[in-house]
Amino acid sequence: MQAELITIGDEILIGQIVDTNSAWMAVVLNEIGVKVKQISSVSDDEAHILAALADAETRADLVLITGGLGPTKDDITKKTLAKYFDCDEFVTHDESLKVVEQIFAKYNRPLLEVNRQQALVPKVCTPILNQVGTAPGMLFRKGTKLFISMPGVPHEMKHLMTASVLPLIKQQYQLPAIYHQTILTAGLGESFLAEKLTAIEERLPAYIKLAYLPKLGSVRLRLSTTLEASPVLMAELDAFADEIMATVPEACITKGDLPIEKVILDKMAQKGLTLSLAESCTGGEIAHQITQHAGSSKVFVGGGVTYSNSLKSKLLGVKQQTLESFGAVSEETVLEMAEGAVQNFGSDYAVAVSGIAGPDGGSEEKPVGTVWIAVANKHQAKAKRFTFGKHRIQNIERATMAAFTFLFHFLKEQED
Amino acid sequence: MQAELITIGDEILIGQIVDTNSAWMAVVLNEIGVKVKQISSVSDDEAHILAALADAETRADLVLITGGLGPTKDDITKKTLAKYFDCDEFVTHDESLKVVEQIFAKYNRPLLEVNRQQALVPKVCTPILNQVGTAPGMLFRKGTKLFISMPGVPHEMKHLMTASVLPLIKQQYQLPAIYHQTILTAGLGESFLAEKLTAIEERLPAYIKLAYLPKLGSVRLRLSTTLEASPVLMAELDAFADEIMATVPEACITKGDLPIEKVILDKMAQKGLTLSLAESCTGGEIAHQITQHAGSSKVFVGGGVTYSNSLKSKLLGVKQQTLESFGAVSEETVLEMAEGAVQNFGSDYAVAVSGIAGPDGGSEEKPVGTVWIAVANKHQAKAKRFTFGKHRIQNIERATMAAFTFLFHFLKEQED
Repeated sequence: MQAELITIGDEILIGQIVDTNSAWMAVVLNEIGVKVKQISSVSDDEAHILAALADAETRADLVLITGGLGPTKDDITKKTLAKYFDCDEFVTHDESLKVVEQIFAKYNRPLLEVNRQQALVPKVCTPILNQVGTAPGMLFRKGTKLFISMPGVPHEMKHLMTASVLPLIKQQYQLPAIYHQTILTAGLGESFLAEKLTAIEERLPAYIKLAYLPKLGSVRLRLSTTLEASPVLMAELDAFADEIMATVPEACITKGDLPIEKVILDKMAQKGLTLSLAESCTGGEIAHQITQHAGSSKVFVGGGVTYSNSLKSKLLGVKQQTLESFGAVSEETVLEMAEGAVQNFGSDYAVAVSGIAGPDGGSEEKPVGTVWIAVANKHQAKAKRFTFGKHRIQNIERATMAAFTFLFHFLKEQED
Repeated sequence: MQAELITIGDEILIGQIVDTNSAWMAVVLNEIGVKVKQISSVSDDEAHILAALADAETRADLVLITGGLGPTKDDITKKTLAKYFDCDEFVTHDESLKVVEQIFAKYNRPLLEVNRQQALVPKVCTPILNQVGTAPGMLFRKGTKLFISMPGVPHEMKHLMTASVLPLIKQQYQLPAIYHQTILTAGLGESFLAEKLTAIEERLPAYIKLAYLPKLGSVRLRLSTTLEASPVLMAELDAFADEIMATVPEACITKGDLPIEKVILDKMAQKGLTLSLAESCTGGEIAHQITQHAGSSKVFVGGGVTYSNSLKSKLLGVKQQTLESFGAVSEETVLEMAEGAVQNFGSDYAVAVSGIAGPDGGSEEKPVGTVWIAVANKHQAKAKRFTFGKHRIQNIERATMAAFTFLFHFLKEQED
């Protein structure tokens, strides 16, 4: 069963927004065994939308369309879909109108005619109630093929998918399982990993694929198969995953598609350990990565984003003399930051980062991209110097990943 | 001149990565007057890639292809392009081989045969040197149409685009200007804005489009035209932008496509003002948004991510009694947090946030999504209660946006 995703809206084509919806939809579709064949972004233009629908219809059994359902004039998806399905009659979906009225009453805003029109749908479609927004979803059938239109606002699309669209797809189609097994690695490059895994790759049967998914500082290895899932097949996939982990143990963080910070949080929560942070050049990104996870407060007590030297001294107790003799970006400072965090923030472990994110602030001795990272507990502290590149946002991301990797291995050493 | 972007790789289609490359490429292409007609993501599958290339060729003058150039077996873009252009001879691009050798020497890693093969390209293409990675770009010509293949690693693609591909496109085509004028608004909903702007929208000439780009808590209004740029046209677009700003002054943050935190940073830097933060439920996201901008250290001294109550007291001086009587998520606590940040972190202004991001921790009186935000300077502090939704990551994003909006207006009041 193949699906295609079409996102409608100039904002993606001019780059004003990144299409995060499609990635989310692909994940949940894959989970229920629907393969996404193609993702296309097309403009708010009737002819182009009609052509994209026709193209997708030739290839896919299911076409999911997002975007272009807002109340404003640039939103033309609804009338274009009506045209594609030869329908010129619109009817009010009463349940959707009730939701529109409730939303406007809740926020105490005047209900305008354009808002009421949100509940109008082409007569040939089956409306899908959107309980969290003003634009209903719409289901169109053409022979055995389904076309489903949803709003582009991420939380509305997610609500519709979860509450209505996925159950509907499962009911409609006989779905095979697509089974993935992912291994998160960090610290080794893609080609170096590939070289070490050559022998395993050569032994992989034709129905199992191994993909390398590199991201700054980490590579996810994904084994996948589209064969009908069976206990034997799943055991085979798992066995290959275990073999990979045994071949590059120094790089493997976890089996499963979890981000590294979640692996760390789970491990620390299980042991009842707490963590604090002392961030300089990462500027809160490490804390943000941690706190996006529900339940992180069990482990994470907090941290300081100590951008200025005076805050490094005040919050973390970094000595004035250390800052003067070695500078803020130094082994000495970052160790005092980590030790200070453990002590002042009262946590079992701490991570500290101080570096030059750029684009300014570099010197010959410490060029832009120089980052010191330290990890500490109540008994021990360790620091490492990293040299990243010239780009600020990348340096922040790389330092964040390196900090998690360093902490992961430090925690592991304590176990051994 | 129309372009299409094709990204190759199963990782986008199964949702393991979000396609941020295309958004970036769309922005820089638009800036030089190239319109992106469609963005397509296709799988690591020869037949599918060949079909996508043929489709794009029918619609576009320029096809930019990213991904699938890694050294591993799942990367098939190079040989598929060779097939599309009927070429079965590969040659080594010496300059690229030199880069590969340098990269491996720099990181002190053994140079493998698969890495050497990265410098092999189909004989019919013009290789484009990639100075920051091992896979060269490739330019293929077919009649007047250009096909350019680049690695999918974001910083390599960006380097190739900036250093080689954009100059090449500008040289090759006579490009019209696409002119956008964007206004950032915050605090008013899309349909409410649309209603207030109806009269202006009705007076817009056919060659100027107005688009609404909503994102949690903000709506960007984008006026655009594809007419040949002229001083008269640009003045007309600007005049409409000014009229919009005069019509909804309470919602308008700035003219131009800047994020709100950058508007605040620029304004504060200009006045020599400093900022600190006291974040609880936003968990470092506000600090991260600020510190991603180069030069933010001029304004931002730092902050505390005070997740635990004890850190709220220790770092910010929130009274034990306040926490006990009113709770961490309360007007009283968030005001003390903001005042404490101004005083303890030594900044002119501070923003504090305390809320229940969810999914747990809510109560009847304070449901998940309840967030208190305070702004303060040395003379005054103000707090507001917000009620967002049930979703943790959205609540963090909304609270971040609301905090910036609140600070923006607070700074503005001080001017008046």
